[in-house]
Amino acid sequence: MNGVHGRIPGRQWSRAIASVHTSCMTTPLTLDPPDWNVYRSLLHRAVDDALDHLAALRQGPAWQPMPAISRDAVRRPLPAEGIGPEALFEEVRRHIAPYAWGNTHPRSWGWVNGNGSAAGLLADVIAAGMNTNVPLGNQSAAVVEEQVIAWSRQIMGFPAEATGLLVTGASIANLVGLTVARDTMAGTDLPAAGTGSLPPLTVYASSETHSSIDKAMAILGLGTRQLRKIPVDQALRLDVRKLHEAIRADRAQGLRPICVVGNAGTVNNGGIDDLGALADVCAAERLWFHVDGAFGAVAMLAPGRRPQLAGLERADSLAFDFHKWLHVPYEAGCILVRDGAAHRRASFAPTRSYLVPLERGASAGPDFSQLGPELSRAFRGLKVWMTLLAHGTTRLGELVEQNCQQAAWLAERLTQVAHCVVPAPVALNIVPFRLEPSRLPGDRRDAINRELLMRLQERGIAIPSGTSIGGRFTLRAAITNHRTRQDDLEALAVAVEQLGAELLSD
Amino acid sequence: MNGVHGRIPGRQWSRAIASVHTSCMTTPLTLDPPDWNVYRSLLHRAVDDALDHLAALRQGPAWQPMPAISRDAVRRPLPAEGIGPEALFEEVRRHIAPYAWGNTHPRSWGWVNGNGSAAGLLADVIAAGMNTNVPLGNQSAAVVEEQVIAWSRQIMGFPAEATGLLVTGASIANLVGLTVARDTMAGTDLPAAGTGSLPPLTVYASSETHSSIDKAMAILGLGTRQLRKIPVDQALRLDVRKLHEAIRADRAQGLRPICVVGNAGTVNNGGIDDLGALADVCAAERLWFHVDGAFGAVAMLAPGRRPQLAGLERADSLAFDFHKWLHVPYEAGCILVRDGAAHRRASFAPTRSYLVPLERGASAGPDFSQLGPELSRAFRGLKVWMTLLAHGTTRLGELVEQNCQQAAWLAERLTQVAHCVVPAPVALNIVPFRLEPSRLPGDRRDAINRELLMRLQERGIAIPSGTSIGGRFTLRAAITNHRTRQDDLEALAVAVEQLGAELLSD
Repeated sequence: MNGVHGRIPGRQWSRAIASVHTSCMTTPLTLDPPDWNVYRSLLHRAVDDALDHLAALRQGPAWQPMPAISRDAVRRPLPAEGIGPEALFEEVRRHIAPYAWGNTHPRSWGWVNGNGSAAGLLADVIAAGMNTNVPLGNQSAAVVEEQVIAWSRQIMGFPAEATGLLVTGASIANLVGLTVARDTMAGTDLPAAGTGSLPPLTVYASSETHSSIDKAMAILGLGTRQLRKIPVDQALRLDVRKLHEAIRADRAQGLRPICVVGNAGTVNNGGIDDLGALADVCAAERLWFHVDGAFGAVAMLAPGRRPQLAGLERADSLAFDFHKWLHVPYEAGCILVRDGAAHRRASFAPTRSYLVPLERGASAGPDFSQLGPELSRAFRGLKVWMTLLAHGTTRLGELVEQNCQQAAWLAERLTQVAHCVVPAPVALNIVPFRLEPSRLPGDRRDAINRELLMRLQERGIAIPSGTSIGGRFTLRAAITNHRTRQDDLEALAVAVEQLGAELLSD
Repeated sequence: MNGVHGRIPGRQWSRAIASVHTSCMTTPLTLDPPDWNVYRSLLHRAVDDALDHLAALRQGPAWQPMPAISRDAVRRPLPAEGIGPEALFEEVRRHIAPYAWGNTHPRSWGWVNGNGSAAGLLADVIAAGMNTNVPLGNQSAAVVEEQVIAWSRQIMGFPAEATGLLVTGASIANLVGLTVARDTMAGTDLPAAGTGSLPPLTVYASSETHSSIDKAMAILGLGTRQLRKIPVDQALRLDVRKLHEAIRADRAQGLRPICVVGNAGTVNNGGIDDLGALADVCAAERLWFHVDGAFGAVAMLAPGRRPQLAGLERADSLAFDFHKWLHVPYEAGCILVRDGAAHRRASFAPTRSYLVPLERGASAGPDFSQLGPELSRAFRGLKVWMTLLAHGTTRLGELVEQNCQQAAWLAERLTQVAHCVVPAPVALNIVPFRLEPSRLPGDRRDAINRELLMRLQERGIAIPSGTSIGGRFTLRAAITNHRTRQDDLEALAVAVEQLGAELLSD
C-alpha cells in the first residue's frame, strides 16, 4: 500500500522546488496576508455570527442533522492550492458552523455537556489571538494557570501543598490521578521498572463508575479486570461493607489493593458516594483515595449541595471539569493531587536534555509538562480565570442549585406524563425517565424508548441522551445548563406526552 | 488540612440558598448577558487587538517578562462576586495578553514551537463561537475531523483502512501509538488482563529520541528501563546494526521485544532515522513500527525533503503535529494507525452504558473516544481543515523547504561569528550552536553559553533554546516559522557576535 494514496503529482513537486530555491532567501514566503484587513473584516463577521447565534439559540432547534450537501462541501480533495479567505469563510459559515452538536442550546441535556458563556467566548478569542504554547515558561499563561489551580484548591478544600494541572477533561484528569496513585502505591520505582514484577494491583469503584476509569486501568497496564466494580445500595452509592469484603478477599489472594475511586456525581443519576466513609476506608487500609468529580465536584460552590460532598476534601486526587457545570467552553478539566511531591515523582517527569532549566529568560517558570501527559498545551487557564471573575463563585453556585431544583421539578413533572416513569432517584441534577406502557412487553418498550429519544433529537425539541438502567433502555436529562428555564423543561414533558401517544398508536 | 483553605464565608452561602430557593423556577438565573452588545463590542475589540498585534509582531520584542504588577493583577482572591465584562477585559488586555511565550514571533526558534496564522485564528474564533463538544456524534465537527484524517493519510502515504485521531499534540499521539503497539503485540487481552503476567516488553529507539517516548513507557506501565536507547551514527541516526544486536540480546534473555520507534526529526538536530531500514527490521523481526514525526513528518509536503523520509509510509503508527510546522494554532496533533482494527481493539474502547448507539439523531456518528484517551474534545479539526484549504499543500511544503534552507544559511552564517561553532550536522531545520572560546575551560564555556541564551531572550532579540549535545550546553534554533526572514537570522548572528564579545570581556 506504500504511498498509493499518498502521491501528489510529480510536476507540482518540481515546480515547488524550483520556485523555493530561487526565491526563499530574497523574497521569503509567509502565510501572513498581504493585507490584514481582509482577515480583520472576516473576524469581525465571525464574532457577530457567534453572538447572533447565541442570542437566538432558543428560537432554533436543539439539534439539526448536517445535510448531504454540507457533508460533500467538507469532503474536498486534498487542496494543492489555497482558496481565498473570503471563499473559505463562506464555506465554513454555510456548511460547518450551523451543524454543531447542540450542547450550547437551552434544551441540551444529553450525556453531561457544558454550554459555555459569553465570558468564556471572549476568553477563547483573546487566547486564540495570543496562540501561546504553555508547556512551561515565564509567561502570563503560566501565572494564570497557577492562579486557577490555587482557586481550585480553595474551592475543593485542598491544602496549599497540593499540585494541580489543567487538562482537556476529566478522562485525562482521571488518568493522571490513577497514574500517581499507581506510581505512589507500587512501592517500587514503577515509572522505570514497569508493572511487570508486581502482583496484580487492584482498584475499587462502584458499578456506577464512569468508563474513563476502566479506560485508565487499561492504558496504565493495570488491566480492567483489576478494577473491582463494587455493588451499590438503593441510592446507587457504593456499598462500603462490600468494599471492605472485596479488599479483604483480594489481599487474602495475594493481590495488592492500591486505590479506591469515589464518585462525586455518577453519569447515570448524579449519585454521590459516601465520600467520608470511603476516605475512612482508605485511611484504615492505607489506600489511595481518588475522586471522580467530573461534573459533580463543582457543586462544592452550592452551599445546599455541599453536605452531600462531605469527604471530597479528603481525596488524595480529584478529577473534575470546568467545561461542564462551571460553563467554561471546551476544553477545560482539572486534576488536583494532595501530595504534590508524589505528583512530581510520577511517570510524567522524565529527563529532557533539550529543556535545560535556566534561571532567567523565557523558560524560567513552572514546568507543567512534568505533571501530566502533554508537553505542548494551549492556554486553557484564561477561560477558567475569566469565567470565575466575570460571574463570581456565588452566582456559579446558585446556577448549580438552580439546575438541581430544575431536575427535581422535571422528575415530578415527568411522572405526570402518561406511561412515563423515573426509574432511579434524582440525587443531584440528572433525571432518568422512560415510557413503561404496561400493555407492551419489555423489549418492545426498549424499542419505543429508543425511538422516543431519536425523535426528540431529530425534531430539534431537546437533547436528552440514552443509557441502560437495570438492563433497560432509559432516557436521561442531565441538567448542567445555565440557559435552561422552566418552559424548556415543560416543553420536554409535553413532547414526551405527544411522542408517547404517537409511538403507542404506530 | 481539610477545608482550611477552602471555606467560603457562611453568610454568603445562606444568602445564596435563600435567593435561589425563592426565585429559580420563576425568574431563572443565567450567565447570558442582559445586553449582548456589551460582549459584542468587547469581542470586536479583541479581534482588532489580535490583528494589530500580529501585524506589528516584528516591531516588538521576541519575548518580554511579565512585570510584578501584572502578576499581582492575576493573583486575585477567589472572587465571590463577578466584576463587569468591561473591567475584566481591561485587566486581561493590560496584564495578560502582552505576556505570551513569544512563539508567534518571527524570531521564535526555541524548542519546536509553532506560530499560527490568520486562517488558523479565524478558525479558532469560529470554533469558539460554536463551542461544540466532539467526543462523537452526528455533527459537522465529526465530518471535518474525518476529512482531516483522510487528508493526513494521503499526505503520509497511509492506506484507506488506517484510522486516525486529532489529539492535543505529539506527546498524546505517541502515547496512543505505543498503547496500540503494546496491546496488539502482547498476545493476550492486555487491556483487560494488564501487563502483569507477561515477560518485560521492550521497545527500541535511538538515543536522540524525544522524552515523550520515555513518558509513554512510564505511563503505560512498561517502564522506562524497557526502552532501549540505541546509539546513533555520525549523522545522529539510529545505528541499525546495534538495533539488531539489542533485539537479539533481549530475546536471548527471555524478554519480549514489541516495538521500534523511528524518529522523523529529532529535537536536537532534526535528524531523521533510516526509516526504510527500520521498517525492514520490524518486518523481519515482527515488531510494531512507530514513527515519532512530531514536527518532521509534515516535510512530506516538501518534495525536496521527501526522500529523507522514505519508509515513513510503512509505519504501523505515526505521530505528528499540525501546530508546529504546518502553522496551525495550538493544540493540534495527530495519530495515524495503519491497522484500524487494531486501533479499535486497544485500551481506549471500554463499554459505556450511557453511550448507547442509536441509528439516528445526535449521537449517530463516529465515536472518537474509542480511539484515544479523551472523551470530551474541542473542535480541533476546523483549524487544520481551514489552514490546509486557505494555503494549500504546495505553499505549506514550500515553507518547510524555506525553513530548511534558512537553517542551512544560518549554520553557515554562525560559523563566521567569532568563537561560534555548529557542533552537529543540520539535517533539516535545526541549527545547534555555541561559543567555544579556546582560552576558557569547558565549564566556563557552558556558563558563557547559558548566559548568552538568557540575554538573547531577555533583550527580546530572539528565542533560541538550550540543550545538551555531547554533554555540553548548546543553543539551538529550530526554524518552523513562516514569519522568519533572512534579516531575522542575520539579527541573531549579529547579536551572538556582540553578546559574545560582551560576555568574554566580563
